[in-house]
Amino acid sequence: MNFYTRKWVKPEDLNAHGTLFGGRLLAWIDEEAAIYTIIQLGTNGCVTKYMSEINFVSSAHQGDIIELGIKAIKFGHTSITLTCHVRNKITQKTILTIDEIVFVAVDDSGKPVKHGRTEITYTDARLRE
Amino acid sequence: MNFYTRKWVKPEDLNAHGTLFGGRLLAWIDEEAAIYTIIQLGTNGCVTKYMSEINFVSSAHQGDIIELGIKAIKFGHTSITLTCHVRNKITQKTILTIDEIVFVAVDDSGKPVKHGRTEITYTDARLRE
Amino acid sequence: MNFYTRKWVKPEDLNAHGTLFGGRLLAWIDEEAAIYTIIQLGTNGCVTKYMSEINFVSSAHQGDIIELGIKAIKFGHTSITLTCHVRNKITQKTILTIDEIVFVAVDDSGKPVKHGRTEITYTDARLRE
Amino acid sequence: MNFYTRKWVKPEDLNAHGTLFGGRLLAWIDEEAAIYTIIQLGTNGCVTKYMSEINFVSSAHQGDIIELGIKAIKFGHTSITLTCHVRNKITQKTILTIDEIVFVAVDDSGKPVKHGRTEITYTDARLRE
Amino acid sequence: MNFYTRKWVKPEDLNAHGTLFGGRLLAWIDEEAAIYTIIQLGTNGCVTKYMSEINFVSSAHQGDIIELGIKAIKFGHTSITLTCHVRNKITQKTILTIDEIVFVAVDDSGKPVKHGRTEITYTDARLRE
Amino acid sequence: MNFYTRKWVKPEDLNAHGTLFGGRLLAWIDEEAAIYTIIQLGTNGCVTKYMSEINFVSSAHQGDIIELGIKAIKFGHTSITLTCHVRNKITQKTILTIDEIVFVAVDDSGKPVKHGRTEITYTDARLRE
Repeated sequence: MNFYTRKWVKPEDLNAHGTLFGGRLLAWIDEEAAIYTIIQLGTNGCVTKYMSEINFVSSAHQGDIIELGIKAIKFGHTSITLTCHVRNKITQKTILTIDEIVFVAVDDSGKPVKHGRTEITYTDARLRE
Repeated sequence: MNFYTRKWVKPEDLNAHGTLFGGRLLAWIDEEAAIYTIIQLGTNGCVTKYMSEINFVSSAHQGDIIELGIKAIKFGHTSITLTCHVRNKITQKTILTIDEIVFVAVDDSGKPVKHGRTEITYTDARLRE
Repeated sequence: MNFYTRKWVKPEDLNAHGTLFGGRLLAWIDEEAAIYTIIQLGTNGCVTKYMSEINFVSSAHQGDIIELGIKAIKFGHTSITLTCHVRNKITQKTILTIDEIVFVAVDDSGKPVKHGRTEITYTDARLRE
Repeated sequence: MNFYTRKWVKPEDLNAHGTLFGGRLLAWIDEEAAIYTIIQLGTNGCVTKYMSEINFVSSAHQGDIIELGIKAIKFGHTSITLTCHVRNKITQKTILTIDEIVFVAVDDSGKPVKHGRTEITYTDARLRE
Repeated sequence: MNFYTRKWVKPEDLNAHGTLFGGRLLAWIDEEAAIYTIIQLGTNGCVTKYMSEINFVSSAHQGDIIELGIKAIKFGHTSITLTCHVRNKITQKTILTIDEIVFVAVDDSGKPVKHGRTEITYTDARLRE
Repeated sequence: MNFYTRKWVKPEDLNAHGTLFGGRLLAWIDEEAAIYTIIQLGTNGCVTKYMSEINFVSSAHQGDIIELGIKAIKFGHTSITLTCHVRNKITQKTILTIDEIVFVAVDDSGKPVKHGRTEITYTDARLRE
């Protein structure tokens, strides 16, 4: 699993307790998963359909750097299933895991369409530039 | 189940497709669930611990009014389990359901503490003022 | 008067003194009043026309839960007049009151149009589901 | 009356109709009035106490530039009264007026304190640098 | 150089150190420079093309009032060059300077177009209303 | 140069022309550069000191995915110099380049301190997990 996007926890990201607001974290994950899906399926037309159970393992605080890891684990005809792991970039401590996030490719009217992909498109090469 | 908080979908809430950004919706739910929990447990010291699987049933668009319904379904010693239903206020069409959201009461150091509650505190009376 | 929407005061809602930013509160009220109006008039085409004087009775702090109460008090031919009460959900202490907020139903070019409503559409039944 | 702060209406500032969200405008005014007050009273300790009636004269759209005018019209012992005028920077068309906005100087515990000012501190000189 | 727009540093504007987030400051400057350009060139069709080096001279903290000064220093055929100075409104201490910000007038397809302006349009008169 | 953080351009990120707001882009870069610096210098205590000239090469639109590349090019005693490249993730077209961004390590009072680092800490290994 690759970890790309990183976030720096700022005051605007905190809940009323002064720890990272869970809703903000879920919003970050949904955006990162959408980006991953668009890249893999090669289309902007894809919507979140399902998330499996979410375990909030530990919290994060102001000033923490967290990184979001996403990986495709299954390609359906019209869907893609991702797995997600969020952790503290410095301590490597797990913050949250989601076993399955399912996106579906859709046409302009929102109906599922075949996406034709069957495996991960590696972008490793570019990472080493 | 009572539906309290309502949201009016504005441009700032949209994803790049022009429909309601799933991450924004999850953030709204997490805040509403936290509010419900604080009221039921009578303490600000509570954190999201777990969400069961999330089904994104239908989408929402700019100008839609949506309402968030939360209800406690189980009181543990240190936890509370909620169920959540989000729907379009006008059409009553379901947008999303989450069977279980678990919050845990914690002390200042983040350790679980007993909250002493065993049933829903009704606020119906006040609703009729 | 019913109180629906609730807000949890987070760091992003504070002014430079660390209390609830008045402008944020006014924005919340304007959105809630618009939602109430859309539901009562059954149309998205409505704009804020007038607010009577606003009394900031008490402040709110990080972690407070506040609730917004709105009620229609007059139906004109093209307008609707609402009254607004914001209070701390836990202490029931008044934070702000606005006697009159007037919305006008408009067509696509922004001209006032008759809305045909003369009384509050109760949604109480649904509240008890 | 001087007009200082200008805003450029962006998608994030729009309501669900695609015009400037009234609540956003009120938030901008409250911040500008607070800034004006802090400068005049020479203290950060001041809170919004009252706004007289608000007339929403015309709307604004994406891409419009608006400017906010504030002027002190009365100095009390612990308060200051401002008047406010918002207009389209290009067309000079009035968007909104508020006759009176009252701020009160307060100490750390929130109690009103004398501010000792009796007239506007002109900053004209500096404007011409 | 005139200083128009003022900002009040709030918790949502802070980085994880609790000082003004540099990125927020750059966003404020870019908006103010765009507004200045639109007014001078009399067209909404203009895009940021270049910024010369940026010196972060001093920081700002929660509660500070800062003011943004922009002035046109050169009119090209399709471009305009501005200079920028940001300072603390109260202490007059410099926060940041940018010697040159270049905007280009563009048509709908994004191609540079002549703007026909050769000097600053003074708005001083209106400032004294 | 590695490209980590990716952004999905949403309506809230647009300027009044409907293209990516330059200020938003600069804010994203400043955050990513701060994150990179904190990881390299191993301390949260670091502030943006300088950016060399910025060339806005091409624009981005709603729905675009962009990626931010940062690389350290010089380690001073108290400073670190980074270079930055932002491009469209799909088309690989350059959006913006900044040759030098300088951060300085500081103590609690804001005075420069030696950071003791002289070369890039590679995290490649972890990328392949």
